[in-house]
Amino acid sequence: MDSGLAGKSPRPGMTAEPMSDKSPFASPGTVADLEEGSALTPKFDADGLVTCVATDAASGDVLMVAHMNAEALARTIATGEAWYFSRSRHSLWKKGETSGHTQRVVEMRVDCDQDAVWIKVEQVAGACHTGRRSCFYRAVPLGKAGGMRLEFRDERVFDPKAIYPAGKS
Amino acid sequence: MDSGLAGKSPRPGMTAEPMSDKSPFASPGTVADLEEGSALTPKFDADGLVTCVATDAASGDVLMVAHMNAEALARTIATGEAWYFSRSRHSLWKKGETSGHTQRVVEMRVDCDQDAVWIKVEQVAGACHTGRRSCFYRAVPLGKAGGMRLEFRDERVFDPKAIYPAGKS
Repeated sequence: MDSGLAGKSPRPGMTAEPMSDKSPFASPGTVADLEEGSALTPKFDADGLVTCVATDAASGDVLMVAHMNAEALARTIATGEAWYFSRSRHSLWKKGETSGHTQRVVEMRVDCDQDAVWIKVEQVAGACHTGRRSCFYRAVPLGKAGGMRLEFRDERVFDPKAIYPAGKS
Repeated sequence: MDSGLAGKSPRPGMTAEPMSDKSPFASPGTVADLEEGSALTPKFDADGLVTCVATDAASGDVLMVAHMNAEALARTIATGEAWYFSRSRHSLWKKGETSGHTQRVVEMRVDCDQDAVWIKVEQVAGACHTGRRSCFYRAVPLGKAGGMRLEFRDERVFDPKAIYPAGKS
């Protein structure tokens, strides 16, 4: 792994580069290979990303949904700490780099067509930039056509203003 | 809800249609509205979709990651059964319509920026078209740069050949 990339500034246009030149992963094969093979050959989308679901290893709650490019996925596998790719900032991003709210990966799974990964993590403090443990802090009432008022379920576990630089949250 | 859409054949090009004309959801407001408001105003992507993570209400395991357009989301909320939008078939899709392996939604959550929903479901048989309970039936070993051989963890809970029409899986 090219560890020299850590901490570099965001590289605009990174998603437009072909991933194959530097990806440590082989290209996806047939559907049968993807589904029943034992080779990790992630099916990155047109932007070079797979979806990642992070759940709390202790409670099972979904903490967040984010994306990984080949580098983020490779770093997560190699280090056991969650790395993502920010679509808005076009940059590789270590979870907790700013906040200290890192995610230690206890287990990683890949789905049938290898375009999504699931990581079970030990989350420091909270995963959500709003200060909650999980990004999914509001429930949608069911069975009420038109009655779509969200119900807040989770309290803040930290003060986002004290953690994130002004304007970043 | 316009129930006349159920069971209609796939409509190619549906994703290219503007969603706003028929969406029962208001358009997203400010970041503050999205994050701290109590109105469900999903932030659909350029294809009119949000990401949906379905977890097993009993075990907490992630069963699948899929997508919902406004209609699928509205039907899921109104009926308490999971509906999705198939990107490959460009069609609304009720989970279990072919297989009988439906998902009854116990709880729905929406994330901070309202571009993803999490549903806890009671899954009949298995969620994965390969026959497993979960689509995430393979683990990725951690800490092994280059050693990316997947480990099968889950056995099949049904025979996909007996459930899905030839060529559909």
